[in-house]
Amino acid sequence: MGGMARNEERRTALADAGIRVLAEEGARGLTHRAVDAAAGTPRGTASNYFPTRDDLISALVGRIGERLTPEPEAVSSRSARPPDRELFADYLRDVVRRLGIDPHVSLALFELRLEAGRRPAVAKALGAWRQGAFREDVAFNEDSGLPGGQTEIALFHYAIDGLMLDHLTAPIDTGLSVDAAIDEFVDRILR
Amino acid sequence: MGGMARNEERRTALADAGIRVLAEEGARGLTHRAVDAAAGTPRGTASNYFPTRDDLISALVGRIGERLTPEPEAVSSRSARPPDRELFADYLRDVVRRLGIDPHVSLALFELRLEAGRRPAVAKALGAWRQGAFREDVAFNEDSGLPGGQTEIALFHYAIDGLMLDHLTAPIDTGLSVDAAIDEFVDRILR
Repeated sequence: MGGMARNEERRTALADAGIRVLAEEGARGLTHRAVDAAAGTPRGTASNYFPTRDDLISALVGRIGERLTPEPEAVSSRSARPPDRELFADYLRDVVRRLGIDPHVSLALFELRLEAGRRPAVAKALGAWRQGAFREDVAFNEDSGLPGGQTEIALFHYAIDGLMLDHLTAPIDTGLSVDAAIDEFVDRILR
Repeated sequence: MGGMARNEERRTALADAGIRVLAEEGARGLTHRAVDAAAGTPRGTASNYFPTRDDLISALVGRIGERLTPEPEAVSSRSARPPDRELFADYLRDVVRRLGIDPHVSLALFELRLEAGRRPAVAKALGAWRQGAFREDVAFNEDSGLPGGQTEIALFHYAIDGLMLDHLTAPIDTGLSVDAAIDEFVDRILR
């Protein structure tokens, strides 16, 4: 393996360590030193790769995006099915499943969203990525003929954020499992 | 004013300062020293009132609850109206309006929810309060004959959490204003 590939691998490992720090310590715990400690790299490594805190945060946003991208097979295995509400519900359940099995990513994202309210540079990096993801979701439904346009996708974004925030922190008993809540939202938002 | 009332007033001022610290600095910034600095009280005052960090957090949860309680007039002025979906939508809009004009409280609550995922003592204090508030909301609808039972109230909790998290941090453009999103949720969740 050449130096380029090794560099890329280390970059990714550092970003993953940063995601862990964000999830476990909160946004204020995110320092270059904490990232080095979590990655097990010599002090100074994280600053070497990401000179400023904003560089570090941009790298984390990028890596969060990668870790949230569905496996190509998850999309291609479904693309032969009729684009009905059941298929849409399936995609949603897949998103929620990925958020649930990788809770550090979801928690890091919640931390960054709160940090975005405090720091314009974070708002900019995160906002551009979230806005892009929202537009892609709307375009995906439109292109595949799935039910749910921009308004419905917006409602699902809000609903699933709230559901996952509850589920991944200290859930209260509402009588609904995550899957049941998704089904209820699909039933009601896609009328 | 006697000493008791003065003590109570100072307790409240310290809790309000703690809410400000949580919203502005995040959960990790919440220390007794930061609360004293934000309240403008001599160092040691916050520790005097709330000896441990868990005492401090319990006090913050209590104060957040107070600040989120609707004015009695907001309830009594509506109680003569027929308990239909329009009245329910009105109550929801009132909740969201209160969350929006007091963003520190909402942001502090989001910070505590993330902290609850990390610290069992926070999960306990916050969970008890959130669970109680959820049960009260369900009972309120039932007692007043308003539409929406436990399932619907659960869905509204998730939906409004996600909506406010977006609105109070770095909102993306979904094409929906907060009020429009509420109307859409009411239309769809209360079928």
